[in-house]
Formats: sequence, structure tokens, C-alpha cells
Amino acid sequence: MQELFTVNNLWMMVATTMVFIMHLGFASLEAGLTRAKNTVNILFKNTIIPAIGLLTYAFVGFNLMYPGADFAGSFFGFAGFGLPLPEGWDSSNYNEGYTFFTDFIFQAMFAATAATIVSGAVAERVKLGPFIFFSILYVAICYPIVGMWKWGGGFLNTLETPFYDFAGSTIVHSVGGWGALIGAYLLGPRIGKYTERGMTAIPGHNIPMATAGVFLLWFGWFGFNGGSVLSADPGLVSKVFVTTCIAAAAGAFGALIVSYLKFKTYDITMVLNGILAGLVGITAGADQMGVGESAIIGFIGGGLIVFAVVFFDKIKVDDPVGAISVHLVGGIWGTLAVGIFGDLAGMGQFISQLIGVVSVGAFCVAFSWVIFFTLKKTIGIRVDEKEETEGLDINEHSMSAYPDFNIKD
Amino acid sequence: MQELFTVNNLWMMVATTMVFIMHLGFASLEAGLTRAKNTVNILFKNTIIPAIGLLTYAFVGFNLMYPGADFAGSFFGFAGFGLPLPEGWDSSNYNEGYTFFTDFIFQAMFAATAATIVSGAVAERVKLGPFIFFSILYVAICYPIVGMWKWGGGFLNTLETPFYDFAGSTIVHSVGGWGALIGAYLLGPRIGKYTERGMTAIPGHNIPMATAGVFLLWFGWFGFNGGSVLSADPGLVSKVFVTTCIAAAAGAFGALIVSYLKFKTYDITMVLNGILAGLVGITAGADQMGVGESAIIGFIGGGLIVFAVVFFDKIKVDDPVGAISVHLVGGIWGTLAVGIFGDLAGMGQFISQLIGVVSVGAFCVAFSWVIFFTLKKTIGIRVDEKEETEGLDINEHSMSAYPDFNIKD
Amino acid sequence: MQELFTVNNLWMMVATTMVFIMHLGFASLEAGLTRAKNTVNILFKNTIIPAIGLLTYAFVGFNLMYPGADFAGSFFGFAGFGLPLPEGWDSSNYNEGYTFFTDFIFQAMFAATAATIVSGAVAERVKLGPFIFFSILYVAICYPIVGMWKWGGGFLNTLETPFYDFAGSTIVHSVGGWGALIGAYLLGPRIGKYTERGMTAIPGHNIPMATAGVFLLWFGWFGFNGGSVLSADPGLVSKVFVTTCIAAAAGAFGALIVSYLKFKTYDITMVLNGILAGLVGITAGADQMGVGESAIIGFIGGGLIVFAVVFFDKIKVDDPVGAISVHLVGGIWGTLAVGIFGDLAGMGQFISQLIGVVSVGAFCVAFSWVIFFTLKKTIGIRVDEKEETEGLDINEHSMSAYPDFNIKD
Repeated sequence: MQELFTVNNLWMMVATTMVFIMHLGFASLEAGLTRAKNTVNILFKNTIIPAIGLLTYAFVGFNLMYPGADFAGSFFGFAGFGLPLPEGWDSSNYNEGYTFFTDFIFQAMFAATAATIVSGAVAERVKLGPFIFFSILYVAICYPIVGMWKWGGGFLNTLETPFYDFAGSTIVHSVGGWGALIGAYLLGPRIGKYTERGMTAIPGHNIPMATAGVFLLWFGWFGFNGGSVLSADPGLVSKVFVTTCIAAAAGAFGALIVSYLKFKTYDITMVLNGILAGLVGITAGADQMGVGESAIIGFIGGGLIVFAVVFFDKIKVDDPVGAISVHLVGGIWGTLAVGIFGDLAGMGQFISQLIGVVSVGAFCVAFSWVIFFTLKKTIGIRVDEKEETEGLDINEHSMSAYPDFNIKD
Repeated sequence: MQELFTVNNLWMMVATTMVFIMHLGFASLEAGLTRAKNTVNILFKNTIIPAIGLLTYAFVGFNLMYPGADFAGSFFGFAGFGLPLPEGWDSSNYNEGYTFFTDFIFQAMFAATAATIVSGAVAERVKLGPFIFFSILYVAICYPIVGMWKWGGGFLNTLETPFYDFAGSTIVHSVGGWGALIGAYLLGPRIGKYTERGMTAIPGHNIPMATAGVFLLWFGWFGFNGGSVLSADPGLVSKVFVTTCIAAAAGAFGALIVSYLKFKTYDITMVLNGILAGLVGITAGADQMGVGESAIIGFIGGGLIVFAVVFFDKIKVDDPVGAISVHLVGGIWGTLAVGIFGDLAGMGQFISQLIGVVSVGAFCVAFSWVIFFTLKKTIGIRVDEKEETEGLDINEHSMSAYPDFNIKD
Repeated sequence: MQELFTVNNLWMMVATTMVFIMHLGFASLEAGLTRAKNTVNILFKNTIIPAIGLLTYAFVGFNLMYPGADFAGSFFGFAGFGLPLPEGWDSSNYNEGYTFFTDFIFQAMFAATAATIVSGAVAERVKLGPFIFFSILYVAICYPIVGMWKWGGGFLNTLETPFYDFAGSTIVHSVGGWGALIGAYLLGPRIGKYTERGMTAIPGHNIPMATAGVFLLWFGWFGFNGGSVLSADPGLVSKVFVTTCIAAAAGAFGALIVSYLKFKTYDITMVLNGILAGLVGITAGADQMGVGESAIIGFIGGGLIVFAVVFFDKIKVDDPVGAISVHLVGGIWGTLAVGIFGDLAGMGQFISQLIGVVSVGAFCVAFSWVIFFTLKKTIGIRVDEKEETEGLDINEHSMSAYPDFNIKD
């Protein structure tokens, strides 16, 4: 008993460290896919966001997301500020799989992810102060409320056919994706991105860094999905490892084939985003899919984001790193896929999945819009033209990411 | 019982994630030790290879390597396509240490390694399409057949004194190394490497990246060797951690001392490859060696690769990253060392080790030659002179790894 | 019994791998915060130091630090050279939490840290040979003797109110910090750092690398602090994870706020060092603090290092990466904080903490001074002016870290 509890808890703690590393993954990916003159700014955001996530989640988020039966409604609940240990708590009676503190720290690592996803889409033009303000509210309030709807026992969990989202295709990734969409839309595109002559590709300045970011994110996903089993159950966790990896690999091929057919070149950024789309796509049903189904979900997810990237450029929503395509489109796809493939497939499930996608989307869009729009009309959310052209690093941070090298324009 | 199974399986899963990170290690090392104009190409190969490895291993490799008693001969066996779970399988009856899915995913992470090793040796001049074609065949067919000879119960395992290869000095590393040798030989050296004035060093463009790669590979080796215990056995796994690290450290010093004596400078690339040579060298006998023996094996391995690098340059086999020296020479050394040092040392064992080295070498050389030679005589395996001079990134991928920086020539 | 032992040992082994990764973290941080012309030199040092640490710790360090009751005095003990397994040892009778080899390898990963910290402070001007000589002595002798005073049962552990240092704010970090202080002082500042016109900032050449370094160090701290529980105890390890992360996050904000108020800019290097200061600060009492106390300790630690960095520049001790501020000032702060906050707080404890800080400081200062001063007066510890100006890479290593790019001056 104590032994099994100790193993289960150990896995949840190790999974926590893996999810933590995803923040380095996001930092590397987003910095790599943007320009050298804005690198310090991106890194600054992605460094401060996990700090924000941990502190706000300890102060309010955890108790908003898991209010407990006494304090919860169907749409909102709150168990109070801070992290008071449950009365009479010791290391073995919190639940069967892990301690109170393990629960908190594992969940806290997820919390910051939502804002990190937004960070990529608004990169290279957002003002730092307002973005940090948005991040605090999004991580502290929006994410945990949505999370409570499903994981905290709220209305999505009590539908006749409960909405299913194993590790967060909707609850985590699309929450970030909706914020990214609203942020990128309200900010408008970067200078020079869409001109009368059409769309101009603005290439990322450091492909090795972006590549490392994707590998680190994949590594983190072992904890993100594997830890979402909430125990070290050998059969389930190992199955989740397999479905997760197969979907990632198939996502790489989906994006490779579609992008090669469309653009006649081997586009590494598409392959990298294809891997992520496969990972986001399998996240909702990683424990419900077989090997073949995982391959199909990943492959379609990878192919889909190539079209999504093209689509968002067509409607002139400028997303420098492809975050909306990966996390929103991929997240919706993965969530719906639970109604189409695997052990839960069926019309009833599909409709519940749709309800989840739409309700989470509506709330996140409204929440993001209110904050970003208010900020835009008051202190402003976008740096001025001179600052954007010269780069955010020199203007917001008085430094360059690479002072010993010459950076072009 | 369930508790111990859960711990054992947990370790195998965590080890899997560590071996996964080796792919980022290889990508970083190989990209760092080659030129900036070919960086996207290297990263592309090393990103797609794990995807190839996972998918082909699920489809055929696993069942070629571990055909099971019903389907296996001494040299070849096959249990069918895909990953059908063994009849009546559940999370506790597959074996004592881990589940079916854990077995698959741990082994699958090893599979891609073979092709990744080749990737480094053929870098900066190989055509992408043919290389991917080679990789698929090498990972899907060559590696699992050789693996079956030992780990799947084939003839190397049933020698009177069984061939011993704990975690794959021969079965993994030299398999990659032989492919690397044949590929580099058939491709010929990079333009400008060997001229009438002698050998020209072509320095790697990003030493921090190469260094990070080696640290990540070392990290991965905790899982590669430690996971090869196939359980969390405390005495054995911790011993393997110690022998592995001591050999790596001694490899650093072996290469440092030999290279300093030869070249009168502190050559970091030699130290980095010395660490890897120590790691490859201890891999065959990591569970059989004492602390002192590990230090000797690592030290000799590290020193050896300095001579090996010089030797391959002398015979004009151009290996940009030293992969043949590290993985082939280091792998042979480590395999033979099991007959010389440690608990199994003896003439009988040494001969069995030699049989393993030679038979695996013969098969891999033949397999690689047939594929690379056929490709060379048909669609070609080498990019044209203009493309090689301008760089593969711009020609095969229409992009640069560092578009915001000026890259020399 | 066997099950619990296996889990405990597994966690100690996984923690070992995390502490190992801290060496990549240090390498990345230190290289990122210095100039491109000295990058190979920094990487070389930080690659060879773990190798030195492992080999010397196996040969003498482990037996100096943990001499065992038979060989130990209050200030010094030694159980002999090498790693003879304790008589009658097998995988379950060494102690309750882990095997002999796990004990060695976990501790060995800590050992090299001390010298790595020094490496940052003396960067860009120290001669390689003398520095390696210093590192060997510091890691092999100074660190284990100090460690024995507390963790090996020496006089700091037998004070009436025993000195408390959970994972090494003093025993590890300030040991490194004192060596860093003496080294940087005796070397003198880099050319051009302090002139008659005042202090010149010499910016680090690669902020993404420095940022990745801090994330990797944070990751490693899960093992550094979490592993210092010396078992997988679910309640304790998970609590340590939480206090560690909260302190890191609060350290980021402490440094952000203080540096913004002082310099009116968002200085990412301060935020990065603030995270590290929070981590170093919580290390002494990670198991003794509540969530709020961890936040306070981290916040103060983060704020403190901004003043410390300014202070050391004022007294013209040139520390290129801020190592003295982070590890020495942060380490002292964390050690004293155990007497102020948490379960052990009290005047008696505070005095014991002070005794620990002072005695360790006195010994390390004397030890470092003797070695560095002797080296300075004999073979010299500083490269000549031409070499420093041109860069250590080209002069000591005959190569550049980035040969395909133009490096300014």
C-alpha cells in the first residue's frame, strides 16, 4: 500500500519535472521561430510566465480549479486563497496516487502553459507590460475556471455523456490557442507581413533552437500525457507513451507530405509544427486510442496544420510561430477525434466533445477579448512602429540577445 | 508483486524518455560539428529519423527483432505486421519487469539510433531523399535483424559461450558505425577536405550546440545503459550508472591527454568525442565491470578515437562529426573489452565477442553497400557541386538556419 | 520492504541524472553570459569539470566526505582510496533508501558543482592549466572536507543545536562562491571592465543559451533538493518540490522588481540570476519551509542579488556571470534563513547557522587563497593581455566557437 503510493507519487513528481521542461521547450521554439532582434523579449516573457503560473496558481488558481465539493458549482467554485493543507492530511491519505503537494505542483506546471502559447502568437509586437498583465489574469482566472468545468467536476464532467479530455487538448491547448487568436487578431500583423504584393515570409532566426524546443516539448509530453494517468499504472502509462509517440511521429509525416506537395520543398518548420500538432491531437484521447488510431490522428493533425497556417495567413491573422494552428486547430481536432476514434467513439460522445470545444471557446474568446480590448483602448497593447522596426530587445530591455554578432537590419 | 512490477516498469518508462532525448543530443552534436550552411538539413534528418524509427519499428521492426519462439530461426524471424497485443496480455503478465507497450517503446527509441549515427558521417553532401530511403530500410530491416541475433534469441545468443553485449556497443552503435563507414566511403569526401596540399580541417559552426549535444547524450545514456538492466534492480542499475559515468569521465581524459600530446592544444571536439567513446565503450559490459575497469575501458576508448579520427582522415574517409570513430571503433573496442576485463573475461568470451563483431559487421556492410551502391548508380546519393558549395539548406530546404546573421562563404 | 527500497533507490538515481544536467545548465549559463571569443574555453572547463569531479570523488572525495565512524574525527576523516564496496554489502543492506553505488553517484554529481561555480567568476581571463589544477584540488579535497563537517557527521553536525543545511546552500553553493570570490579577486578584473570613466557592462553573447542554462539548472534542482530527502518519501519530496519552485518563482519577481526600480528596464539577466538566487536560497531549508516562507525567502534572495551584483562591481571584483552574488550571497542568505523562518527558526539555530557560514567560509577562503596565490606567484593564473584581448578560444584552443560567423572585435 505505502509502496504503491510511493511509486505512484514518484511518477507524478517525475512527470512534473518533464512538464516543467516544456517551458524551456516553448521558450526555445518561440525564440527560434522569430527574429533575432526580438529574442530577449520572447525569452523574458517565457521565463516570467512559469513564475507567474506558479505563484498565481498557489494563490488562487488551484483553489479555483479544484474547489472541492463544498465550494463548487457547475460553472464556478473557489476554496479560498493560498494553499492550506487539507485538514488531517498526511502523505498517504490525500488520494491513492499522490500527495496534496504533488497534486498542486503537477497542476501548476500545466497552468502556465496557456499563457505561454499566447506568447508565441503575439510575439514581435506586443508591449511587455500589458502582456504580463494579460498573462496573470489568464493564468490565474481563465484557465482554472475552464479547467474546473471538466477536471474540477464542473458541468462538462456531468453531461449525460461526459465531455472527455484526457490531458487537455481543449482544457489546456485550446485555452491557450483561443487567447492566441484574439491577441494576434487585436494586435494586427507585424509590419511588412502582409502588403499589397501579398504575404511575406518572416523566417525564424534560429532553427536549431526551434528544433531543440520541439524535442523538449515532446520530452515534456511524456509527463504531460503520461502524468495525466494520475498514477504509475503500468499498462495505462505505457500505452499512453506509445500513443503519444506514434501520434507525434505520424504528425511529422503528415506535415512533411502535405507541405511537400503544397510547397515542393522540405520545410522543417512544418515538420516541427506537425510533430506538435500530432502531440496536441492525441492529448485528448491518449488513453483511449490504439496504435493505428494514434497514427491516423497524428497524421491528420500534422497535415491539418499546414492548411491552418496557410488559412490564418489568408485571413491576415499573423501568428509568427504557428501557435494558433498547432494548439487551437490541433486541440479542436484532437478533442473531436475522441468522438470519432477509439474506445469512446460515437455520436453522443462527439456531441459532448463539440459542446466542450464550443463552451470553452466562447468563454476564452470573451475573456481574452475583454482584457486585450480594454488594454488596447487604454494603455495600448502594441509597441510603436519605431520600436517594432528596431526590435523589442533594444527598446524594452536595453540589450541584444547576441551583442557579439551583427544582426541583419 | 504489483508494487515491484510497477516500479520496474516505471524505471523502464523513465529510461525510455532519456533515450528519446539522445535524438536531440545527436541532432545538436551533428549540427554543431558541421557548417552553418547545412544546419537545417542535418536537423531535418535528425528530426525525421526518430519518426521513421517509431513508425517502422511499430510496423515491422519490433516483430523482426523479437519474433518470439514460434516465429524465430537462428538468423531471422518475424511475428507479423503491426503491434497486436499478445493474447491474454494485461499489465502484469507480459514479464516481470515491464509491460508489452513499455517493451515496445523502450526498444523503439533504440531503433532510430542506428540511422542517426549514419546521418553524421554522410553530412554536408548526401541527398536528402536517398538518405531517408536508406534510413527507412536500415532502421526497419537491418537493425532489427541484427538485434534479433542477440537480444531476440538468435545465433549469437546460442553460441557455446554466448556473445555478450549488454546495451549495444555492437548491436546498436557499431550497426550505425558500419552504415556510416559505407555511406561516407561511397559518397566520397566533401569538396575541399582533401587536396594536394593535404587535409583541411572544416570546423563545426557551433561548439556550444555540439557540447550540449554531448551532455544530452550522456544524460540519455543513463537510460540507455541503466534501462538495459530491464528492471529497476537497485544494485544493478546503480552499478551501471557508476560504470557508465566513470567510463565517460575517463574517456574525456583519455582523449584530452592523447590529443594534447599529438596536437599541443586543448581540443574540445576531441574531449567531447572522448566522452562519447567512453560511453560507447562501456555499453557492452556496463554491468560486468568494476570501477577501475570502467576507467580503463573509458580511458583507452577516449584515447583510441583520437588515433581513429586521424586514421580515417589518412585513408580519406571524410566523417564530419567523427561518428565512425566513436560508434564503430568505440563499439568494437567496447565489445572486445568484455572478453578482456570484468566478470566474463576469458579467451572463450573474447572469441565470441569477435564472432559478434565480425558477423554483425559483415551483414551491415553488405546491407549498407547494396542500398547505397544501388542508389548511387540510379538516382544518385550526392548533391551536385553547386549545391554542396552553396549549402544544402538553401537548395534542399529553401531556407537558412540563421537568416538574421551573415554566414561566411 | 524490497519494493520500498527499490522505489527509494529509483528516485535517488533519477535525481542523480537531474543533478548531472545541472552541469549542462552551468555550461550554458556561463558561456551565454560571457563573450563569444571565450566560449570554447568556458565550455571546455565546464565539460572537463564533471569528469574531474567523478574521477577524484571516486578516488578520494567520497571517502573524505563520508569516512564512516571508524575513520572520522570532527574535522577530518578518510576511509582510504578508491571505492571498495563495504564488506557484506548487497543491494538492500547499505541503508534504507539506496545502494552504495547510488550513494556514490548522487554525491559525486554534487561534488563537481563547487568548481563549476568558480569557473563562471574567473571566466574570460584565467589560464586553463592552473584553473584545472585548482579545480582538481578544490573538488577532491576542499569540498569533501567541508561536506564531512555536516553530512559526514563532523563538528557542524554535533553542535548542541546542529547546523542545518538541507541540500547545500552552504556546503555546496557557498563553497563554490568563496572559491569564486578569491579567484576573481586575485585575478583582477577583465581588461576594460573598470576604467576611469566607471564600470563598463560587458554583455553576455548569447542570451538564449543563458536562459536555457537557468531552466536546466531549475530542472536539476528538482533532483538536487528533491534527492536530498534521500528517499522517495512522498510527503517530503513533494513538499520540497513545491518550496523549491515557489522560491525560484519568487526570486524571479524579487529580481525583476528591484532591478526595474533601480535600472528602469526589464533586465533578463537579473531575472535569470534572481531565479537562481531563489533556488540557492531555499536549498538550506527546502524541507523546513511552508509555501509562504518559501516565497519570502525566494523574493528576498532575488532582490538581494541585484544589490550584490552592484556591490561587487563597486568594489571592483569582476564576476562576469554573477556567480558570487548568486551562490555566495544567496547561499549565506539561505543558510541564515533557516534560523529565521520555518520549523527550526530560533536564536540558537541562527547562531549555529552563522557558525556554519563562518567556519566554512574561513576554510574555503584559506584553501582557495593558498592555491590561487601560489599559482599566481609561480606559473601565473592570468592569460597575457594580447590573449585576453584576442580571446582565449583562439589562443588556448586554436579554434572559434562560431567559425562561420563574424564575431565583433
